[in-house]
Amino acid sequence: DYSEGCHPNILKAFKKINFIQTESYGDDIYSKEAIAILKKRLNNSNVDIHFVSGGTQANLIVISSILKSYESVVSAKTAHINVHEAGAIEAGGHKINFIDSENGKITPKQIEKVLEWHTDEHMVKPRLVFISNSTEIGTIYNKKELIDLSDFCKANSLYLYLDGARIGSALTAKKNDLTLRDISRFTDIFYIGGTKNGALVGEMIVINNRRIGKNFRFYLKQRGALLAKSSFIGIQFKELFKDNLFFELATHANIMADKLRNGITDAGFSFLTESFTNQIFPIFSNKMIKELEKKYSFYIWKKMDNGHSAVRLVTSWATKSEKIEEFIRDIKKRL
Amino acid sequence: DYSEGCHPNILKAFKKINFIQTESYGDDIYSKEAIAILKKRLNNSNVDIHFVSGGTQANLIVISSILKSYESVVSAKTAHINVHEAGAIEAGGHKINFIDSENGKITPKQIEKVLEWHTDEHMVKPRLVFISNSTEIGTIYNKKELIDLSDFCKANSLYLYLDGARIGSALTAKKNDLTLRDISRFTDIFYIGGTKNGALVGEMIVINNRRIGKNFRFYLKQRGALLAKSSFIGIQFKELFKDNLFFELATHANIMADKLRNGITDAGFSFLTESFTNQIFPIFSNKMIKELEKKYSFYIWKKMDNGHSAVRLVTSWATKSEKIEEFIRDIKKRL
Amino acid sequence: DYSEGCHPNILKAFKKINFIQTESYGDDIYSKEAIAILKKRLNNSNVDIHFVSGGTQANLIVISSILKSYESVVSAKTAHINVHEAGAIEAGGHKINFIDSENGKITPKQIEKVLEWHTDEHMVKPRLVFISNSTEIGTIYNKKELIDLSDFCKANSLYLYLDGARIGSALTAKKNDLTLRDISRFTDIFYIGGTKNGALVGEMIVINNRRIGKNFRFYLKQRGALLAKSSFIGIQFKELFKDNLFFELATHANIMADKLRNGITDAGFSFLTESFTNQIFPIFSNKMIKELEKKYSFYIWKKMDNGHSAVRLVTSWATKSEKIEEFIRDIKKRL
Amino acid sequence: DYSEGCHPNILKAFKKINFIQTESYGDDIYSKEAIAILKKRLNNSNVDIHFVSGGTQANLIVISSILKSYESVVSAKTAHINVHEAGAIEAGGHKINFIDSENGKITPKQIEKVLEWHTDEHMVKPRLVFISNSTEIGTIYNKKELIDLSDFCKANSLYLYLDGARIGSALTAKKNDLTLRDISRFTDIFYIGGTKNGALVGEMIVINNRRIGKNFRFYLKQRGALLAKSSFIGIQFKELFKDNLFFELATHANIMADKLRNGITDAGFSFLTESFTNQIFPIFSNKMIKELEKKYSFYIWKKMDNGHSAVRLVTSWATKSEKIEEFIRDIKKRL
Repeated sequence: DYSEGCHPNILKAFKKINFIQTESYGDDIYSKEAIAILKKRLNNSNVDIHFVSGGTQANLIVISSILKSYESVVSAKTAHINVHEAGAIEAGGHKINFIDSENGKITPKQIEKVLEWHTDEHMVKPRLVFISNSTEIGTIYNKKELIDLSDFCKANSLYLYLDGARIGSALTAKKNDLTLRDISRFTDIFYIGGTKNGALVGEMIVINNRRIGKNFRFYLKQRGALLAKSSFIGIQFKELFKDNLFFELATHANIMADKLRNGITDAGFSFLTESFTNQIFPIFSNKMIKELEKKYSFYIWKKMDNGHSAVRLVTSWATKSEKIEEFIRDIKKRL
Repeated sequence: DYSEGCHPNILKAFKKINFIQTESYGDDIYSKEAIAILKKRLNNSNVDIHFVSGGTQANLIVISSILKSYESVVSAKTAHINVHEAGAIEAGGHKINFIDSENGKITPKQIEKVLEWHTDEHMVKPRLVFISNSTEIGTIYNKKELIDLSDFCKANSLYLYLDGARIGSALTAKKNDLTLRDISRFTDIFYIGGTKNGALVGEMIVINNRRIGKNFRFYLKQRGALLAKSSFIGIQFKELFKDNLFFELATHANIMADKLRNGITDAGFSFLTESFTNQIFPIFSNKMIKELEKKYSFYIWKKMDNGHSAVRLVTSWATKSEKIEEFIRDIKKRL
Repeated sequence: DYSEGCHPNILKAFKKINFIQTESYGDDIYSKEAIAILKKRLNNSNVDIHFVSGGTQANLIVISSILKSYESVVSAKTAHINVHEAGAIEAGGHKINFIDSENGKITPKQIEKVLEWHTDEHMVKPRLVFISNSTEIGTIYNKKELIDLSDFCKANSLYLYLDGARIGSALTAKKNDLTLRDISRFTDIFYIGGTKNGALVGEMIVINNRRIGKNFRFYLKQRGALLAKSSFIGIQFKELFKDNLFFELATHANIMADKLRNGITDAGFSFLTESFTNQIFPIFSNKMIKELEKKYSFYIWKKMDNGHSAVRLVTSWATKSEKIEEFIRDIKKRL
Repeated sequence: DYSEGCHPNILKAFKKINFIQTESYGDDIYSKEAIAILKKRLNNSNVDIHFVSGGTQANLIVISSILKSYESVVSAKTAHINVHEAGAIEAGGHKINFIDSENGKITPKQIEKVLEWHTDEHMVKPRLVFISNSTEIGTIYNKKELIDLSDFCKANSLYLYLDGARIGSALTAKKNDLTLRDISRFTDIFYIGGTKNGALVGEMIVINNRRIGKNFRFYLKQRGALLAKSSFIGIQFKELFKDNLFFELATHANIMADKLRNGITDAGFSFLTESFTNQIFPIFSNKMIKELEKKYSFYIWKKMDNGHSAVRLVTSWATKSEKIEEFIRDIKKRL
């Protein structure tokens, strides 16, 4: 989902505002407009909103702004922060207490076990629950699951943080029953991923619980995330959310994923995990994978025992239907 | 210098490559092309080049990638890292041993005093010298000064790092006798600032001394600086350096600054410090500053005793001659 | 093993040297004598030796002195650093890649899997293997296992660090075939725990591989571990190692543990894990544990399903035979 | 003041309690008794008290437990944290905004200037004021000065922390008008230094403002400062404070310093700074210093221009009158 640049509307907007002088470091009018639009969508004027340039940056700043040095994060084993951020959270000083999870999601019951185990000052103190929606393996939380997590966190003095790098894909998935408002209501803080869904670069952090995130701009500056020309991120979110572009793009990615999933299923292949979003994990023979790699770009997710591997295929707002058809033809040929 | 977006050529380039699929995380062809162009300009194929999105990010990653936890940075008191990065270097674990400096520059003799004072393991161990060119107060290093610093650093096991947020302005200043090649030759590591000189966002880190910067991409990733859609930074540097655009833009900023400087001098005002680049620091009465603030955007640099203050005025590649003239008329009126 | 103070010889030595003026911060003659004695015992004059006041301090300083910020530690899940140091290693910036292990020990094959999984700069880079001997659950490494680990680490550019908080107990266990010299030869760095074996307070860090540990005193000072009156730790290690006191005390603890283990076995109880050292883990009913807690001090290690728990019983150099007999009588009574 | 061990009463107490089993990690009865004694002396049962093994450790834990990552410490330039802790505070993530100070003390007016200069999120946010009493150059705060600092800090949302490594010497100095109760009342947190005043090792941290220091034991553990055999520090403070031993020892050190000061003055030497406590800073010729170094142990504090240097002489609870007389004879001989 990083292969293309951004939606053409965004480049148009860049051009339009290019020579208009604005304030810098987040005080520009385009960022302010984007924030106003989002507050309206969330039906909540009491949130605090900031922009950063990437998901790892969002995660490391959010987490280090909330936790004291002895406090830890609870996440799924597959969580981006636990695997694919080069130890950014630990470099910020915090242990991740991860939970083995089949489907990339975690439950109050699993978190409770972590809490029970951490009894005194010889151990870290779990304080923040990290979830992602959609998860790193394509699954999504439904409304009941999110409310259960929210209730459990409140009852146990835990903050709930949702990594929304793929929130567009989650909220437009077939089985989804959550809205942006729900997420703002049932989490303490979350971010909306622009980079994977039509923006050139940019993530939008939404702080719902105002007891956290105080002096957030200091954290942004200190971690090198307070961008001088902030207007160029603000304008992207304005474009994505002023109408329905953000969700249209995500819907397209999901439809392309459905098509791809069906095609692969028809061709007789199985999947590592059931996914409802724009990431799917079919299992191919290593030999076939080698062939496909010459033509397509994807990630080998997990080596299986029998000469097979699960690969990760990701569709995006820019994926074309013909390309899907071509891929399916190619795997059928190679059966 | 952050008020406008970027040079129109850059938006054109964005549009041109927008739907071309490329690799992500720095492996894209545009980044590779930009790197190839720069290596040629530096006449050195043995440098290692990386892109990040801002100057604070460049500084904190470079410094923390080089220093052990007990090692410190030596800089001028006015250095960006010492004043305007919200403690980013200390948050990364390192003390800054700063030097009081009239003109924003530092000399071997001053550094030597710092070294003499740090004698044992009860104190930090200075290991990296940080300079900026042009400096935070508009002055520049000449070739002899840079060579002297380079020789001193080599003789004393210190690394020399040059913050080039304003390197364009420095290298096109009237009194300048340095080239990009000189800087690559006489420093261990430096960065070329794009954001302040025509780019939308982006700085280019050049590692000259290959004994440092090993596994640099791990640091980039861990600090949230490894951008997914790296091509959009790469293409900007390609545009800026494929011909001479980078230096033309900086030259324009300097010419505008000259015009502004001369106008202010003619109007009878004095300056806090002599500057040869696109930052100038005239001294106005606080009353006049209040009037000017209604119309112009600038920064109050230093309060003086007598109801006056030094302000920082910055010109850029996008500054128009008429605007300069208007400003000079305005201050003359207010005499 | 912390209930009593220290061996009487140590207090006598304190008294003897109390009014003799010595250097501070590790340059005192008693520290130097202790170091000379140890070098002789290790048959290696090329090691570098330092004293600190506790095990967590030793671990956090050793690890942060060796690793770069993106490098990680590999350990058993049960490792002290992973569980019982309140996140000290992560607070120092490093991720722990832990291995599920039945017996508290880890093998080259397990480490290899960790290495295979960590492929690029999106993930941390494993660089240090942490083992403890005896382990946190009372097991010990034999010579072949240590050599295998050593060979594997060398072949894979990993450093091998042995936490010897309980090294006395390990080296005097019945099944042990390792010596201090072996440990110095087959690890890059390790520490000898005094606090748990007769000292009032103090651990001795031995750096075997001189490519690490450079400027180690800076790390000690920066972490608050460079003790002013260093002679009082040095003199303890001198007392413990000038003859064979250290090993005699550990042997006593092991003999007491054997007696306790046999008594508990005779009484019909089972154990969570097979241990050969001074920590044993019998399984009692929760009801009985409550009774025992009124009279004895121990730690509930793990709750089992059926109203039972494993507890950790630790014998020490000061444990008396009668106390063991009394305990065994008490558990027999409560059957 | 580190040349000798500890006061004989302390060794006697060690011997007495050596085989009495107690709890570990601060829960022992001796620590509890010492805490009760101190609370009574401070006339305040609402303070929270902890023990650590050294001053650098106390400083780094106190400061990192209070500050958020973007907050800074304000101190004198000569402060121990700024000069002699190998960057421990910065390694914990915090910038020190130091104040040039002739006498090692700082005033509200000086702090105000620091506050005025730090205006926004591009800079750190000063949040904690660090003072030491007596200071690193032997001066002391009087009651009015402490109250002024306290009032200023309260009015400006700053915490006030007093490093009491030499608090005994300060509170028994001739010109002193402060008591332990005053210090507890007018600071938010401070520590009482045992190591420099009769203890073998140990500092006692007193948290007066209960809004800070929450979960302090987690910080202790995480930094390797939670000592297993805590009773051996507790018993020392019990011995020092159960009667008046702590103040008697400090008084002795001050009397010896007076004698030394007078002798040096009589011999015709001048001093770098006026000191009322057990550190004095006479100025000798470098030649004479070389002679004296053969026989005495001291620290060259500052090189002067004219072939002279100021040296630091420190007396302690164990300094003998005859030794002072011998020293004075020696310098008279070498005139």
